[in-house]
Amino acid sequence: MENVDYETIHDELFIMLEQHMIKELSQTLAEMNEFDISEFLGELWEQDQTRMGMVFRLLSKEIAADVFANLEVEEQETIINSITDTELAGIVESLQVDDAVDMMEELPANVVKRVMRTATPGTRNLINQYLKYPENSAGSIMTAEFVDLKKYMSVREAIARIRRIGENKETIYVCYVTSAKRKLEGVVTVKHLLLSDDDEVLEDIMDTNVIFAHTTDDQEEVSRQFSDYDLIAIPVVDKEGCLVGIVTVDDVIDVMEQEATEDIEKMAGITPSDRPYSRMSVPEIWKHRIPWLMFLMISATFTGMIMTHFENALAAQVVLASFIPMLMDTGGNSGSQASIAVIRSLSLGDIEPSDVVKVIWKEFRVAILCGVSLAAVNFVKMLLVDRMLIGNTNVTLIVAATVSLTLVFVVLFAKFLGSTFPILAEKVGLDPAVMASPLITTITDAVSLLIYFTIAKALLPF
Amino acid sequence: MENVDYETIHDELFIMLEQHMIKELSQTLAEMNEFDISEFLGELWEQDQTRMGMVFRLLSKEIAADVFANLEVEEQETIINSITDTELAGIVESLQVDDAVDMMEELPANVVKRVMRTATPGTRNLINQYLKYPENSAGSIMTAEFVDLKKYMSVREAIARIRRIGENKETIYVCYVTSAKRKLEGVVTVKHLLLSDDDEVLEDIMDTNVIFAHTTDDQEEVSRQFSDYDLIAIPVVDKEGCLVGIVTVDDVIDVMEQEATEDIEKMAGITPSDRPYSRMSVPEIWKHRIPWLMFLMISATFTGMIMTHFENALAAQVVLASFIPMLMDTGGNSGSQASIAVIRSLSLGDIEPSDVVKVIWKEFRVAILCGVSLAAVNFVKMLLVDRMLIGNTNVTLIVAATVSLTLVFVVLFAKFLGSTFPILAEKVGLDPAVMASPLITTITDAVSLLIYFTIAKALLPF
Repeated sequence: MENVDYETIHDELFIMLEQHMIKELSQTLAEMNEFDISEFLGELWEQDQTRMGMVFRLLSKEIAADVFANLEVEEQETIINSITDTELAGIVESLQVDDAVDMMEELPANVVKRVMRTATPGTRNLINQYLKYPENSAGSIMTAEFVDLKKYMSVREAIARIRRIGENKETIYVCYVTSAKRKLEGVVTVKHLLLSDDDEVLEDIMDTNVIFAHTTDDQEEVSRQFSDYDLIAIPVVDKEGCLVGIVTVDDVIDVMEQEATEDIEKMAGITPSDRPYSRMSVPEIWKHRIPWLMFLMISATFTGMIMTHFENALAAQVVLASFIPMLMDTGGNSGSQASIAVIRSLSLGDIEPSDVVKVIWKEFRVAILCGVSLAAVNFVKMLLVDRMLIGNTNVTLIVAATVSLTLVFVVLFAKFLGSTFPILAEKVGLDPAVMASPLITTITDAVSLLIYFTIAKALLPF
Repeated sequence: MENVDYETIHDELFIMLEQHMIKELSQTLAEMNEFDISEFLGELWEQDQTRMGMVFRLLSKEIAADVFANLEVEEQETIINSITDTELAGIVESLQVDDAVDMMEELPANVVKRVMRTATPGTRNLINQYLKYPENSAGSIMTAEFVDLKKYMSVREAIARIRRIGENKETIYVCYVTSAKRKLEGVVTVKHLLLSDDDEVLEDIMDTNVIFAHTTDDQEEVSRQFSDYDLIAIPVVDKEGCLVGIVTVDDVIDVMEQEATEDIEKMAGITPSDRPYSRMSVPEIWKHRIPWLMFLMISATFTGMIMTHFENALAAQVVLASFIPMLMDTGGNSGSQASIAVIRSLSLGDIEPSDVVKVIWKEFRVAILCGVSLAAVNFVKMLLVDRMLIGNTNVTLIVAATVSLTLVFVVLFAKFLGSTFPILAEKVGLDPAVMASPLITTITDAVSLLIYFTIAKALLPF
């Protein structure tokens, strides 16, 4: 047993290409798996698109469609432009409908037209139907290639049917029992079939308590069902309860990755994109980053106004200014921690919006613990380091007390904001992830200053 | 076909419990799936642990172990303490080894002892062996229940063997061909078997180019292989290349969720925890949040020192102070955007540490675009809003120019830091995720001030 590692044959492949050793290249490709071949083609694409088209044509028909499905859309476009209509038709017919639809959604209009022209009427209809499902819905990620069985079949007949029609199905491991009107009546796994008596009838062994999704369900909901119920496929039904497709676990893994990336991007104030970072152009990246940067920059005007308002206090006690960054950062960090813990728990189903009071009470106690421990350390640090070690005589006992007391209130406020905002967002139907660090930080900044100067005015002479 | 929805029977269940309708309760439970039952038990646990133990004992033997595996460790402990040794032994024997090991790692020592005492010697050995694999390694999440075949078997014999021994295997859909010395020689899927002729020999149809993992591989690496190669199970071999277990896709989905949560937590300066937020106590949450808060608070001392150093400049031009929060926030946000884009791309394998120059060049151009557009808007805003609308006459043309110019450099620096730090971390073997917003923000704060005051000194009279 040997695991042909792409890294180790990578250089060989390029040498064969350089030296036009077409036969050797085509033999090596035949032994590689689809994923590695598409990695290789992707690298080639970046260097020389014509050669990439040439290498693609070396692939056997069986593997070409799988490799094609794994490529980025720009790479698919290059290939479409370098093959004949007949070759294109072959690939389109072998693609899973969901992969074909993914591609159609991103290709330029003229290329889409050519693809549609070469497809058979049946495929064309199927693609058109899928294109109607909302983006990121179960309908848009499902595939129509599943095994359907009837409840009056015996186990023997069912296995015989699977052996006959299973070849091009996305999975054969979960089979679906449907009525004459295509209504979903039950599921049976191949494991269950194999472990049952040949003469048993499906009606008696099938599972009628089916976990299923609707075509319009959000893909995130579908992926939750996979992780909750340990599924390897889920049936998707239309409004009438008719089985129209299935979503398999490999597609759900991609969905999970994509949703996690989107959440993470939103948390950092980036508007999410479907395309990988390495393939995005500089203006594209700019377009995804500038809206939040701009909005937050403008919002900071309020913080500036508060500073201006307390200008006199600041001029009288310049020492106060030097602790503003620390107070703001600590507030921002405390708030992000709470908001991100809450956002993630909401998205994993660990807490519900109705838990809001429980969450606030928990965060309140956490905030007290965090605030007091930070304040204590800060108080000692200001006196020992800032005053004694660095020798800043403006840092008096009362200044240290002001800063430390402010810390407690800032942390309290930040944790309150961080824990409630995402839940409120969820309640009004917004995505909680946008309530993460950047927004919380900007609000906390302004409020921290207010707290700081209020306490300072009470404790210090101006 | 009906999907019994937990939400809809939830209240019914509690009513049955209230009114001691034990028979009805036990019938309803029999129709529910394991996940929903464990949700129900979890809720019950929070209200009344004794009743939760009672309800658990209503479950049929077949389902009890699956439900048990789905529970949180505190809930498992409650159940262990409420059942007899014989019942406990039954559950331990039915648990998948990986689930048993997960539990053992978290249970208190005295409970572990009782579990080990009731287990059969075979199970005990297996658990002990698994406990030796490093946490989060392929070994620690694999299961020993797989179907092994021999290469001289015919398809007919293989199917017969699967039907005979498949019952308690974690999956039967991928079977492993091993030598007499248990060396992994190939894989064959049930689909392939079913679609082949009964008389074919496994040696001729098995796939010898196997994607596999080592027991010591990190679970994150294993989950990457699943998403790259669309697997439903991966074989795990020891140092000698002997097959010791498999990891199935349902476990990998949990790993992916857990790893995404960990990354998100690290990005927010929270030390990761295996336990869900809703189950963590207040001191526990504090323990996971205070280290970074404390470290970052202390680090802000440098920012404070820079402020103190420029105290005179600040006293002469108090107007400068009011733009410090905006500059710091914009720097922090710009840096987080870059760092999070890079961290995520690294973890998805979209970019490699060797791409560092490409990434820096890309981020440099993005930073120029972002910096210039922010600066332009800020310049106009300061003159129109701050000076004319609010009437702050201290905001002169030259002050607006100072702040805007600073913005360009701050964004440039922040994007540079944000994009290089995670890659450097990866290169020296640290987790790139800790190089996210909080750390970047703290460094950017200090550097922003330096840039600000340097430009101000050059342009403004002090």
